[in-house]
Amino acid sequence: MRPLSRFFPILDWGRHYNRQFAANDFVAAVIVSIMLVPQSLAYAMLAGLPPEVGLYASILPLVAYAIFGTSATLAVGPVALISLMTALIIGALHLPAGVSPVLAAMTLAIISAAILLAMGLFRLGFIANFLSHPVISGFVSASGILIAVGQARHLLGLPKADGNLAEILAGLVSHAAEMNVLTAILGFGCLGFLFWVRSGLPAILRRLGMAGVWATFVVRAGPVLAVVITTLASWYFDLAASGVKIVGTIPQGFPAFSLPSFDPDLWRQLALPALLISVIGFVETISVAQTLAAKRRQRIRPDQELIALGMANLGAGFAGGLPVTGGFARSMVNFDAGAQTPAAGLMTAVGIAGATLFLTPVLYYLPQATLAATIIVAVLTLVDLKTIIHIWHYSRADFGAMMVTIALTLFWGIEPGIMGGVVVSLMLYLHRTSRPHIAVVGQVPGTEHFRNILRHDVATGTSVLTVRPDESLYFANCRFLEDRIYALIAENTGLKHVVLMCSAMNEIDASGLESLREINARLRDAGVTFHLSEVKGPVMDRLAPSGFVDELAGQVFLSQYDALSKLDPSALTPCRIA
Amino acid sequence: MRPLSRFFPILDWGRHYNRQFAANDFVAAVIVSIMLVPQSLAYAMLAGLPPEVGLYASILPLVAYAIFGTSATLAVGPVALISLMTALIIGALHLPAGVSPVLAAMTLAIISAAILLAMGLFRLGFIANFLSHPVISGFVSASGILIAVGQARHLLGLPKADGNLAEILAGLVSHAAEMNVLTAILGFGCLGFLFWVRSGLPAILRRLGMAGVWATFVVRAGPVLAVVITTLASWYFDLAASGVKIVGTIPQGFPAFSLPSFDPDLWRQLALPALLISVIGFVETISVAQTLAAKRRQRIRPDQELIALGMANLGAGFAGGLPVTGGFARSMVNFDAGAQTPAAGLMTAVGIAGATLFLTPVLYYLPQATLAATIIVAVLTLVDLKTIIHIWHYSRADFGAMMVTIALTLFWGIEPGIMGGVVVSLMLYLHRTSRPHIAVVGQVPGTEHFRNILRHDVATGTSVLTVRPDESLYFANCRFLEDRIYALIAENTGLKHVVLMCSAMNEIDASGLESLREINARLRDAGVTFHLSEVKGPVMDRLAPSGFVDELAGQVFLSQYDALSKLDPSALTPCRIA
Repeated sequence: MRPLSRFFPILDWGRHYNRQFAANDFVAAVIVSIMLVPQSLAYAMLAGLPPEVGLYASILPLVAYAIFGTSATLAVGPVALISLMTALIIGALHLPAGVSPVLAAMTLAIISAAILLAMGLFRLGFIANFLSHPVISGFVSASGILIAVGQARHLLGLPKADGNLAEILAGLVSHAAEMNVLTAILGFGCLGFLFWVRSGLPAILRRLGMAGVWATFVVRAGPVLAVVITTLASWYFDLAASGVKIVGTIPQGFPAFSLPSFDPDLWRQLALPALLISVIGFVETISVAQTLAAKRRQRIRPDQELIALGMANLGAGFAGGLPVTGGFARSMVNFDAGAQTPAAGLMTAVGIAGATLFLTPVLYYLPQATLAATIIVAVLTLVDLKTIIHIWHYSRADFGAMMVTIALTLFWGIEPGIMGGVVVSLMLYLHRTSRPHIAVVGQVPGTEHFRNILRHDVATGTSVLTVRPDESLYFANCRFLEDRIYALIAENTGLKHVVLMCSAMNEIDASGLESLREINARLRDAGVTFHLSEVKGPVMDRLAPSGFVDELAGQVFLSQYDALSKLDPSALTPCRIA
Repeated sequence: MRPLSRFFPILDWGRHYNRQFAANDFVAAVIVSIMLVPQSLAYAMLAGLPPEVGLYASILPLVAYAIFGTSATLAVGPVALISLMTALIIGALHLPAGVSPVLAAMTLAIISAAILLAMGLFRLGFIANFLSHPVISGFVSASGILIAVGQARHLLGLPKADGNLAEILAGLVSHAAEMNVLTAILGFGCLGFLFWVRSGLPAILRRLGMAGVWATFVVRAGPVLAVVITTLASWYFDLAASGVKIVGTIPQGFPAFSLPSFDPDLWRQLALPALLISVIGFVETISVAQTLAAKRRQRIRPDQELIALGMANLGAGFAGGLPVTGGFARSMVNFDAGAQTPAAGLMTAVGIAGATLFLTPVLYYLPQATLAATIIVAVLTLVDLKTIIHIWHYSRADFGAMMVTIALTLFWGIEPGIMGGVVVSLMLYLHRTSRPHIAVVGQVPGTEHFRNILRHDVATGTSVLTVRPDESLYFANCRFLEDRIYALIAENTGLKHVVLMCSAMNEIDASGLESLREINARLRDAGVTFHLSEVKGPVMDRLAPSGFVDELAGQVFLSQYDALSKLDPSALTPCRIA
């Protein structure tokens, strides 16, 4: 791959662009733009920022991603999860003098951009792998619930209430008397309509004979319809005078390019949250991008995706926006609508820019309850009960990590939730590797293959004991192995040889080597010779120069069958003729 | 093992006690007591506490250990490392009203005792395994340097200076003008004498024909000789009047049993430091105990050792002492002196009690510089350069963890040092397992054994590709495996089958299972059948109910040889006749 194309994928797909692509991309862009205008306003509101910030954050990032991104159909912009995190982060800040929440959000996007670019340039993409699937799933589900419950106040016309689940619910209850009935009717009406559009309407459309593609389009346009109807109603009936909160004045046109704050105290407060947003945003982007790429047999490059995301957030930050990432819903819409290349994103950016220039006076009357209803419906699809059940059946450890993540996110917060989930996953992994399965193996008769004596019908002799630890030997488990071998020696009198079958031992660290030395010495004192078999290449590369092989009382055999052939051939049954 | 003996090992060895044991134990006890009296004073001084505290902390803990401990020759009491940690912890406290440093030290010992007992009862001994050997070695070496440098001020008669290495050195330099010449002569004279006793004297004694045992005894008694001579000199020449700091009045007899403080604020401050002291003390004890047990082919029980240490610290706390643990030097002296059973420790306790009752007026004139010299010589033996070099050659990763531990301990502090070392060790381990070695394997001709095509002369066909990942499949590495397999498919056109050889795959977690499903689906779409071979029992136990085996396009083979026999027998060379 030419070096310039590596960092500027636009040079690749741009060279093959043609009229057919342009037509498909244009159609997709129109559909996505229509969907994104209300969604951008909604997510800005979710982030606790003025609604136009959402629009600004939807323009330049799409342009940046089109230049730097490797996915053909990923769409970047404000997403529910990152917007919620932004709200919580800024809400918890001690804002220095002269720094407004909007300025803080811009600065957060810039810091996040710097982190993402650094991660991309240093190829640190693999860090995101440490968020296990159960932890991500649990985190996203819990966040979906948190967001939905947090938006309920908009449906009822109640004041702001943030924090964890308990705090939000308490806030709702304590202010219940201030509920605005008109808002509630409007809000729950929208909610009901949007749920119906997703579940009831498609069946009706199919029976009416509508083609699948058009039916999907209508369903996706549901929020837009709700926005149009409720805005008209709000204007016609002057609902604002009756206490229904509306979006209000949105500045028309683009903001001037502004600098974020460079206040050191602010940066210090934002550093860790920005890191979390970057990692979580990256994980979400990669999940979506890989799903889309698989559908079209394309490949994405995670380290380049980091750079693209970084540039997108740079654009968001300097344009007066908030942190952005690849969004699942908007990307799926883009994909389903037939986008072929990232040019669709460029055209979408133009569409939203147009809305910002011309449509904003119209949005004046849009009720906030409508936006809240669209958010609630969107995020409740994030709650993934199916996965929770699957993981309960497959792995109690993973289920435990998932539950810890969900509980921490719901009852403590976003940051403790994700960090707690990662820590629990890692601790469970380390605990498992520190008490490894250690099998005593024997020969599967008639073959050169050796398996666990407890599970298979195998032949063993009495003078040779073969032990196969099912784990790399490292500091957390080497004493465990020592103890097991000594216990086995004590149980099996008459032993002359012990063979350590290393086929599952992928590494031996310094503490592990100490343990092997200790085992070798103790066995020798007890009159038993210690051997190794099936040592892997990379492990041998380290063992050989250490002098251990010379210390070893016995030998290192290439295969377990060789070991038995040499040490106790009478115990073997001959292998079949192939 | 009878349940009562499990928790009270004294019931075991006590039943076999006889006159021969008693005689050996008595001799050992005399020798150890003589060595321990000045050492206890020295370590109390190192902990920043009055010297008698060291004596008190050497009596009851020995009794407790004799009742509860499983090692025959381990000796518990104040040790250099724990005493230094105590000094730093108490120095950093905000002492509540009415809480003296001594009371804080007693409370620290009690909290540590509670933690140790809890760890023992819940069988959490394995936690100490997470301190890898290189980290422990680096930590102990760095602490030895810290202690030695910190004691230099006593050699020069300078005021207190604590903290990290830079702070101590800065303190020494800035107060250099206040140096007391007489103290310096005395201190460095002691230092020189003690070094000579360790290195030069044994050679001379051997040439004089002295038996090894007696020579060792004389060398070990070096500090006692230094104490006696300098105390006499201090008394005769009234060195205290010339500015040489002396130990001063030590209360005669035992303190009343006193309660530690139960101030909640104090406990909150001490909680984490007590945990660190407990874990490090336990690791040190286990290292020493296992070394001694190996010499006599005895076994120790780590979870019972936790209980014994807990009881010992309970005794130390209530008797007005400081936290204690098994000490290397005192245990080696005990062992070398011929101790047979923990009764030697009981007798040593009596000996030190006697010194506390009767010898304390004599110790009035003991110069602090002498004690400092004995500490310096003792801890400099902790600095383990040999291990550092060995680990540099064996494992750069372990060396890195070691160096981080040493640097953090020297330049930041004890707690950052040990925690940093553990974190770095774990991170390095996770990093290695997240980018596993993945081998493409082929048949070793004439056998049923399969090895890496890059390292061995093996036979492979063109329609079957066998991949052997050398690591468990878990969230941190499953994407890496996916990418590698897809890349291999792209390189090897004409493939019909891919076999995943799972002999080194000790676990597949939920994220790993996802990846296998994804690989299965993608390969199927590309016209390649996915198979598994050599799946371990515990792994299959989880895979089978998950439904993956039914989803799998191909089969699960018991051995790799079976797989090739079925899928591409023409590529195999027949196995030899055994």
